[in-house]
Amino acid sequence: MSYDISTPEEAEQAFYQAFELADIRAMMSVWAPSHDIICIHPMSNIQLGIQAVEEGWKQIFASGQKMHFEVILQQETVCETLVSRTVQENIYLHGESRPRPPMLATNVYRLTDDGWRMILHHASPAVLANSSRGRPANPPVH
Amino acid sequence: MSYDISTPEEAEQAFYQAFELADIRAMMSVWAPSHDIICIHPMSNIQLGIQAVEEGWKQIFASGQKMHFEVILQQETVCETLVSRTVQENIYLHGESRPRPPMLATNVYRLTDDGWRMILHHASPAVLANSSRGRPANPPVH
Repeated sequence: MSYDISTPEEAEQAFYQAFELADIRAMMSVWAPSHDIICIHPMSNIQLGIQAVEEGWKQIFASGQKMHFEVILQQETVCETLVSRTVQENIYLHGESRPRPPMLATNVYRLTDDGWRMILHHASPAVLANSSRGRPANPPVH
Repeated sequence: MSYDISTPEEAEQAFYQAFELADIRAMMSVWAPSHDIICIHPMSNIQLGIQAVEEGWKQIFASGQKMHFEVILQQETVCETLVSRTVQENIYLHGESRPRPPMLATNVYRLTDDGWRMILHHASPAVLANSSRGRPANPPVH
């Protein structure tokens, strides 16, 4: 599936919609079909390249967990062919009225021949309280 | 302290050197002195703007923990005035011969009147084993 995505905002909207629908075809159509795309799910290692990224989404979607995203833009930096957007993700699981602890995601989009495509999604848990512990004197326990 | 940084690579090198030296003046000279810069330390909330970012580094440096970084570039995307680099950070604490569990960081640099400056540092723990748990069916415990 190839179609034009005319803005990074439109790509971002399509990304979270595909995530909510657990639609692997729609999800992968948001990404640039490139060897150098990167996806980092929370507390996970790097998935590098289109095949690894697709495999990662298939595993997530296989859980069958439906969710809704409230996405709050924190910062955006724009260049002619590259846009970086950092957002807070408030995630509601199906059947729950309160969101899970929020995630922070940096999403990077590149202008391709087919319009704007995601090339990087780096998501990690936000810790809203006692967040000044710093690193690596107190590294997270694995 | 204002000086020209001629490439994003040079800015990144200065960033990790300032981190190793726990030198707040050198660290802040790497960042664009802007209201929209963002720093996300591992398992922490967003620090937005120059004052919050500086306060965050002061807290980290106050721990007195000296460390050495081995930085491995995973992906780079370049635009005329914006560069995104995702790296793996292998961190050695002073007196230890083996690195701590690695971090993943997305670093974004912007071309300013004083050359390249960091505008975003988003770091989070990598989990090298059993990393396919996905989200948010199994969200991290806070």
